[in-house]
Amino acid sequence: MRKINVAVVGATGAVGTQMINMLTETSLPINQIKFLASKRSAGKTIAFKGQEFTIEELVPESFEGVDLALFSAGGGISEKFAPEAVKRGAIVVDNTSHFRMQEGVPLVVPEVNPEALKTHQGIIANPNCSTIQMMVALEPIRQAYGLKRIIVSTYQAVSGAGNLAMDELKQQTQAFLDGVPKDEIPANILPAGGDKKHYPLAFNALPQIDVFAEEGYTYEEWKMVNETKKIMEDSQIKVSATCVRIPVLTGHSESIYIETEKPATVSEVQEILTNAAGVTLEDDPSQQIYPQALNSVGSKSTFVGRIRKDLDEEKGIHMWVVSDNLLKGAAWNSVQIAEKMFEMDLLGK
Amino acid sequence: MRKINVAVVGATGAVGTQMINMLTETSLPINQIKFLASKRSAGKTIAFKGQEFTIEELVPESFEGVDLALFSAGGGISEKFAPEAVKRGAIVVDNTSHFRMQEGVPLVVPEVNPEALKTHQGIIANPNCSTIQMMVALEPIRQAYGLKRIIVSTYQAVSGAGNLAMDELKQQTQAFLDGVPKDEIPANILPAGGDKKHYPLAFNALPQIDVFAEEGYTYEEWKMVNETKKIMEDSQIKVSATCVRIPVLTGHSESIYIETEKPATVSEVQEILTNAAGVTLEDDPSQQIYPQALNSVGSKSTFVGRIRKDLDEEKGIHMWVVSDNLLKGAAWNSVQIAEKMFEMDLLGK
Repeated sequence: MRKINVAVVGATGAVGTQMINMLTETSLPINQIKFLASKRSAGKTIAFKGQEFTIEELVPESFEGVDLALFSAGGGISEKFAPEAVKRGAIVVDNTSHFRMQEGVPLVVPEVNPEALKTHQGIIANPNCSTIQMMVALEPIRQAYGLKRIIVSTYQAVSGAGNLAMDELKQQTQAFLDGVPKDEIPANILPAGGDKKHYPLAFNALPQIDVFAEEGYTYEEWKMVNETKKIMEDSQIKVSATCVRIPVLTGHSESIYIETEKPATVSEVQEILTNAAGVTLEDDPSQQIYPQALNSVGSKSTFVGRIRKDLDEEKGIHMWVVSDNLLKGAAWNSVQIAEKMFEMDLLGK
Repeated sequence: MRKINVAVVGATGAVGTQMINMLTETSLPINQIKFLASKRSAGKTIAFKGQEFTIEELVPESFEGVDLALFSAGGGISEKFAPEAVKRGAIVVDNTSHFRMQEGVPLVVPEVNPEALKTHQGIIANPNCSTIQMMVALEPIRQAYGLKRIIVSTYQAVSGAGNLAMDELKQQTQAFLDGVPKDEIPANILPAGGDKKHYPLAFNALPQIDVFAEEGYTYEEWKMVNETKKIMEDSQIKVSATCVRIPVLTGHSESIYIETEKPATVSEVQEILTNAAGVTLEDDPSQQIYPQALNSVGSKSTFVGRIRKDLDEEKGIHMWVVSDNLLKGAAWNSVQIAEKMFEMDLLGK
C-alpha cells in the first residue's frame, strides 16, 4: 500500500489553517507530515491530529523524501521553492497565482478537468478562489448545453486576503459601531495589501481586488477570465468579470450570467446541478431558499440558486453561486487535487 | 411671485428625515409646510428650519390648500390618500411603488425624462432607488450611442428598508463581533419585512430584496426592469437584474453591463459622463479612484467609475455606479421633481 510524505508550506495563514483541517479528514494515506515556514515562524508549534508539530524553517533540503508539497505562502515563496521541491521528487500543489498560467502547469478543478493532471511536470496549480466555484457550477451546464459567454459580478469575502484583513474588517466594523468618524477608521490592508491606497471595507463595497492591470481590469478579474479559458480548455469562451470586496468574513458570492449554445429551461438546469459533483442546489424562491455566504462556511460544496432565464435572451441564464472561499476556493480544492492524483496513480509510489 | 404650501406624509422614516433635509435647502419658495402621519405618530414634534412643528394626523382634509404633497409612508397610505390630495388640488410626488407603473402617472428622473411631467394628472411617481441611479448614469450614454441591453447586479444598502432594518443590521453586527453563534443572531426584518423567513445580513449577502414574483425574479428586480422601460420610453431595451442586499447602511452600488447600438470607447464614455447632469465621474484606476458607497453618503450625485470595454463584445461596456439611496434614490429625486415642476410652471399658481 502506497503511503505518502506530505509537506505543508504556509500552515499558519487563513488558508493554511483550513489546509490542516482538510488534511485531518483526507482519505490520503499520510505517512509523515511536516510544516514549513520562514525563519520568522520556524520553531512555533502546530497541532495536527492531536499531535504537536514544530514548524521547520523552509530550505530547499526540506523537500528530501517528500511526495506531496502543498504551498500556500505567497507567490514569491512558491516561485523560489516549488522547483526545489520538484527537483527532489515531490509533487507540488500550489495555491498561489504564480504558476497558474504557465504552460505545462495543469490548472485543475477536480470536478472539471482531472485529466489535465496527467500532463503535469511536477507542479499543479490551484485556481483562484472566485474562479473555482464558478467552474464547479458551470461545467455541468456546459457539458449539457455548451457555453458561449460568462458575465460575472462577485461579492467576495475578506478571508481571501488573509487573517490580517479579517482582523482589520472586524476592527473597522467595531469602530463604526462605536461612532468613530469615517476618516479615522483604520485602513492599512484592503483593498490590496501591495497597493498604494487603503480604504475602509466596513459598511462599504470596494470594486477592487488585487491591483489594476490592462484594460482597466484588476488582476483578480483577469484571473477569472484567463483561468476559466485554461480550465475549460476553450479560448473562445467570452468572459468578463467585475470583482468586488464586501464586508463578509468568509464565503464568496457570485452573480453569474451565462449564454449557452443550446437553450435550457430552469428545471433542466436545476436537474443537472442536482446530480453534479461538488454542487448543492439551493433554489426554491417560494420558500426563500437560496445560497448565502454565512451558510456556506465550513462546507466543501458549491451552492447554486436563483436560477432564472434571462428575460430577453433565449439562451441566457442568471444564477447565484456561493462557496467557502477558504475550502473549495483554496484548501479543499488543493487537497482534493492530491486525492485525485493518488486515485489516478499519479502520486506516491 | 408664486409660493407653495407643502405637506410631507411620512416624515419620521429613513427617507422622511432626508426629505426634510432636502426641503431645508430647496429652491422652492415654501409658504407653509405641514407634516402628516398616522394617529400613532400625530402629536410628536419635528424640527424644520429651526422651528418646531407638531405632526398632524393624516386625514383627507389635511390636503385643503396644499399645493405639493410628498408621500413616503408606504404603498397603502399612498393608495388611500394620494387621490384625496389630488382631489383637493395638490400635486402628489409619491415615493412608493404603488402608482409607478400606472398609465397617466409620470415616472420621472429629472435628468432623464422631465418632459413626462407635462402629462401628469396629479400624481407623479418617484422611481425605485436602484433604478434612479442607473438611469442617471445610462441616459447620457444612451443619448450618444443608443442602448440595447442592460444586465445589472446590485449591492444594496439596508436603509432602503427603513430605520428598523438599519438598527437590525447594527445589532446583528455587534452580536457577531461579540461571538454570538449564527443561529442566535436576531433576524426579524430582512431580507423583506413582509416575507415569511428572515435571515441575518451582518457579514452576509442576501440575494433577495422585496418578495419573489414571476419567473423567479423578485419585485425589486422587476422594478428595475419595468421602470427602466417606462422612464426611457423604450419597451425594446433588454433589461435583467439581480438585486442583492449587502451589509452597508447607506449607499447602493451597482455592477452594470450595457450594450450600446454604436461602439463607444472608454474615454468617450468618460467624456460624456463628465458633462452629464447629476453625475460625478470617479474613474482613475492608476490612482485607485472609483465610487464607494461610504463616500456617496450625503451627496445628491450619482458616482460612476470602473468604466471598461467588455473583453469580447465590441459594443459592451462595464461600469460601477454608486449613489446615496436615501437622497438621489428617494428624497432628493422627489424634491428635485417638485423643483423641476415649479421651474416648468406646473406647480404653484
